[in-house]
Amino acid sequence: MGRYTGHADAVVRPRTTDEVAAVVTLCAAEGVRICVQGGNTGLVGGSVPPSHPDGSRPTILLSTARMTDVDEIDIVGQSVGVQAGASVATIDTAAGRAGLMFGVDLASRESATAGGVVATNAGGVRMIRHGNTRSQVLGIEAVLADGRILRRWSPLVKDNVGYDIPGLLAGSEGTLAVITGVLLRLVRPATGAEVAVIALRAVDDATALIGAARDAGLTIEAAELMTDAGVTLVHEHGGRRPVATAAPFYLLLEVSGTGGVQDVLLGVLETADGVLDAVVEPGPGRALWEVRERHTESISRSTATPVVKLDVSVPIHALGDAVADLEALAGSRDHRCRPILFGHVGDGNIHVNLLDVPPDDADGLTEAVFAVIAGHGGSISAEHGIGRAKSAWTHLGRSAVDLATMRAIKDALDPQGLLNPGVLFG
Amino acid sequence: MGRYTGHADAVVRPRTTDEVAAVVTLCAAEGVRICVQGGNTGLVGGSVPPSHPDGSRPTILLSTARMTDVDEIDIVGQSVGVQAGASVATIDTAAGRAGLMFGVDLASRESATAGGVVATNAGGVRMIRHGNTRSQVLGIEAVLADGRILRRWSPLVKDNVGYDIPGLLAGSEGTLAVITGVLLRLVRPATGAEVAVIALRAVDDATALIGAARDAGLTIEAAELMTDAGVTLVHEHGGRRPVATAAPFYLLLEVSGTGGVQDVLLGVLETADGVLDAVVEPGPGRALWEVRERHTESISRSTATPVVKLDVSVPIHALGDAVADLEALAGSRDHRCRPILFGHVGDGNIHVNLLDVPPDDADGLTEAVFAVIAGHGGSISAEHGIGRAKSAWTHLGRSAVDLATMRAIKDALDPQGLLNPGVLFG
Repeated sequence: MGRYTGHADAVVRPRTTDEVAAVVTLCAAEGVRICVQGGNTGLVGGSVPPSHPDGSRPTILLSTARMTDVDEIDIVGQSVGVQAGASVATIDTAAGRAGLMFGVDLASRESATAGGVVATNAGGVRMIRHGNTRSQVLGIEAVLADGRILRRWSPLVKDNVGYDIPGLLAGSEGTLAVITGVLLRLVRPATGAEVAVIALRAVDDATALIGAARDAGLTIEAAELMTDAGVTLVHEHGGRRPVATAAPFYLLLEVSGTGGVQDVLLGVLETADGVLDAVVEPGPGRALWEVRERHTESISRSTATPVVKLDVSVPIHALGDAVADLEALAGSRDHRCRPILFGHVGDGNIHVNLLDVPPDDADGLTEAVFAVIAGHGGSISAEHGIGRAKSAWTHLGRSAVDLATMRAIKDALDPQGLLNPGVLFG
Repeated sequence: MGRYTGHADAVVRPRTTDEVAAVVTLCAAEGVRICVQGGNTGLVGGSVPPSHPDGSRPTILLSTARMTDVDEIDIVGQSVGVQAGASVATIDTAAGRAGLMFGVDLASRESATAGGVVATNAGGVRMIRHGNTRSQVLGIEAVLADGRILRRWSPLVKDNVGYDIPGLLAGSEGTLAVITGVLLRLVRPATGAEVAVIALRAVDDATALIGAARDAGLTIEAAELMTDAGVTLVHEHGGRRPVATAAPFYLLLEVSGTGGVQDVLLGVLETADGVLDAVVEPGPGRALWEVRERHTESISRSTATPVVKLDVSVPIHALGDAVADLEALAGSRDHRCRPILFGHVGDGNIHVNLLDVPPDDADGLTEAVFAVIAGHGGSISAEHGIGRAKSAWTHLGRSAVDLATMRAIKDALDPQGLLNPGVLFG
């Protein structure tokens, strides 16, 4: 992204958990801070060392790049143990050879690592179907801030013995422990999936349509919202328009079921409100998915200034209003930038991309977007996390007591404040 | 159960969160311990005050019996806010009026409370479909050990702002905070469900059958294993035999899909290994479910001594061996009791009911069962939690570092050790 720089006094590239433990033990003894880096694909600066080093406390960068082992797949138990540095694509490929898949998928799949997606509780396009990354974590291995190794490593889906430490470490952005390995749940690929792009009059029509598809017994594999501005931009960069009819909004819907999926889907489309046009592509629907997936690249090639990328969510019922408010904000006299919104509409998650933002307005615009989202009861970070980028705004989504409770847990597990300084707590 | 007794110096029955906060603030100032009680349906003594009161530290029982409010259902957002004392049945009924349901169901639904099922991360018969109770928790309100109120209350499914405090409180058995309210996810009821009971040769045939049903595109709504001993016992107490053919094991399978569900299911049954007989009942299948649900009552009426009830889980691949080992253990010369095993087979969860156990062998037998389960890499508590009953055995499922980490979190959030003394940590 080019937005974050930092300083590390050394880089360590351990190969094993024991090596990580040895490094952390030494750091704990010497008061050395540790910035953990996985695939370095995060969007909030969470894997970049602090830019203003504290002179008295050196910082090392601990990279998991060499910790890439993927264990044999447990086909019956639908799980696999991996080292933290194994990439999402590597894990998914290994799972695929066993007829399974990793339930998390995201654009950065080739570089993003197991440790990274767990530490950030990544979302992605399959979350509506298989849940967030936290819910894929059956077991975890991590090195605590004093160098001890915590290992909870069993494929049990039901195991109510005390606190959910794996779930606590998931989404903690490396601030509580260094994740060295994860035992991941795997899922079965969808059978008989169909992909459609539906031209819609309004955002809320998309929500209603998803509900109607569910009521008809269809399983929602993905539900991605696009706007006319986004589809037009992709078209300008060589992509095709998915539907002949131009519409304010487009919903990419992937559904599956026991059989007759296309008929059921067509039945839903025929009776749903606000459907202006639709195209259905049987099978994986790569041509339709391409329109969605080319958004990021097309956006990057279309702006005169760095894109202001925000990742917000709102309650489902507020989606339509929030999208309208964000578009109005971007077009307002105070800001005048070009908004391209898209996202995981079934989860209430909108990726806000603001193009041609005057550099001196980036922070002000970010604040203004957050204010809109907070006004709708939304979150300033749906799936990207807080990192360094958003640590100043956590009060918009968490009460003082909540933040103090997080801080108490941080202080209990990392009393010297060595792990990922500057992340989450600012 | 009649197994636990305790002493409380007072019982408080607050109506509101503010009243809970006032009580806890007072207790914190005076060093008074607090035992929290919901529906009092737990099976591990987690809601009973300590039996041997510490003379210097009085204990109160805090009941949520008067905190029964259920907010209006958010139909679009599929969620509902409830006070901790609202019963599972009340919540489900309210959800049902809006065409939705609560994803957690268990036999104690009339008494079990929202606060209780969240605090224990309850499982139940719908977990294979909708996940554990923790995954139904969108938001939480809780009173911390010093009386401050923590409230994270938004229906967002994606909200990556710091640690998953709701997930941490879920399953913490009241040892970290007093849960006063929960914002719960609601789910859509299954469409076109069919219920079958399948007579099977072996436990592993059940696992394979569940996998085949999934591969055929069916959604598994429930998968409950029964044994011939259990079905016979139910029959002796007036229940009917679900299938004409006697078999070592029976699988109750509830499946749903887009259409043609019965045909797809019959196709799966015809090609699966180990199927000796099967009966399919369209719709809710109450007659077939009754055989499963009458197990507990039939067991209670069939034993000369208190039933030893354990709730264990093993990795799916070890299910068959674990069941065989448990039956052998119960029938061995050292023990000679009658085992009735049943459970949520799709989750690897077995409820172990041991009848006619000599009272002086109850502890020894419990130890022996846990040793078998630990040997298979299983858990001593799948869904019932630890409470007071199993706190001596947590080392069988958690490493010393893991337990020390839990303890550090406990000490950080409840430094005086006032909340649910004796629970989890013994």
